[in-house]
Amino acid sequence: MTADTSFCVLTGNNIETRRVRAGGVIFREGERADELFVIKSGYVRIQVGNRAMADLAADNIFGEMALIDSEPRCATAMAITDVELVPISEKQFLFLVSQTPYFALKVMRILAQRLRVTNKALD
Amino acid sequence: MTADTSFCVLTGNNIETRRVRAGGVIFREGERADELFVIKSGYVRIQVGNRAMADLAADNIFGEMALIDSEPRCATAMAITDVELVPISEKQFLFLVSQTPYFALKVMRILAQRLRVTNKALD
Repeated sequence: MTADTSFCVLTGNNIETRRVRAGGVIFREGERADELFVIKSGYVRIQVGNRAMADLAADNIFGEMALIDSEPRCATAMAITDVELVPISEKQFLFLVSQTPYFALKVMRILAQRLRVTNKALD
Repeated sequence: MTADTSFCVLTGNNIETRRVRAGGVIFREGERADELFVIKSGYVRIQVGNRAMADLAADNIFGEMALIDSEPRCATAMAITDVELVPISEKQFLFLVSQTPYFALKVMRILAQRLRVTNKALD
């Protein structure tokens, strides 16, 4: 199964981006959520409590969980370096899922990878 | 976001099912994988090592991880009761994802829920 279409291609070049300085908090565990983010440049750390779960580079997404199941943020996201992000609203997310199956597959693949990582941490 | 269309509706009524007796192993951690399963009736336990990760009832899916990222099974699945399963091949899975966005959303929602459970277990 191939699902390697870049998130940046899927989200396009002419859309609004958000810049966060190194050390800045993008969102905190427990906050209400209405968007996910594609990393356009820089590195983002995902933390649950004090545990670093993942350091993510460009063309990764994060924050998708809260959009999928409408629960508060389950992790904190911080900019490790200066980052440029593309925010994706719930409406845009549903559009991408329905119009581009590869987007859905890529999100599923990311969730599956994260689940493998956390399963291993539990072993 | 609503994605409550039943998996059994999505997979149809006239397709092949597989029956497994209570106590039977459906697949084991580490095995190669080429299908996921929809539970039509009965209860299935998902185990990582000796840890029970989830007990799943009818209209849940399991085994989707290996199909999404082409890795070996990351958990063992056992029938707690007699179960009736609908196996979904990779080809059928890709068809469902591309043709029925709700299927994709439902799979994502299940992955997200499992990730929340394992994240909590790590806390």
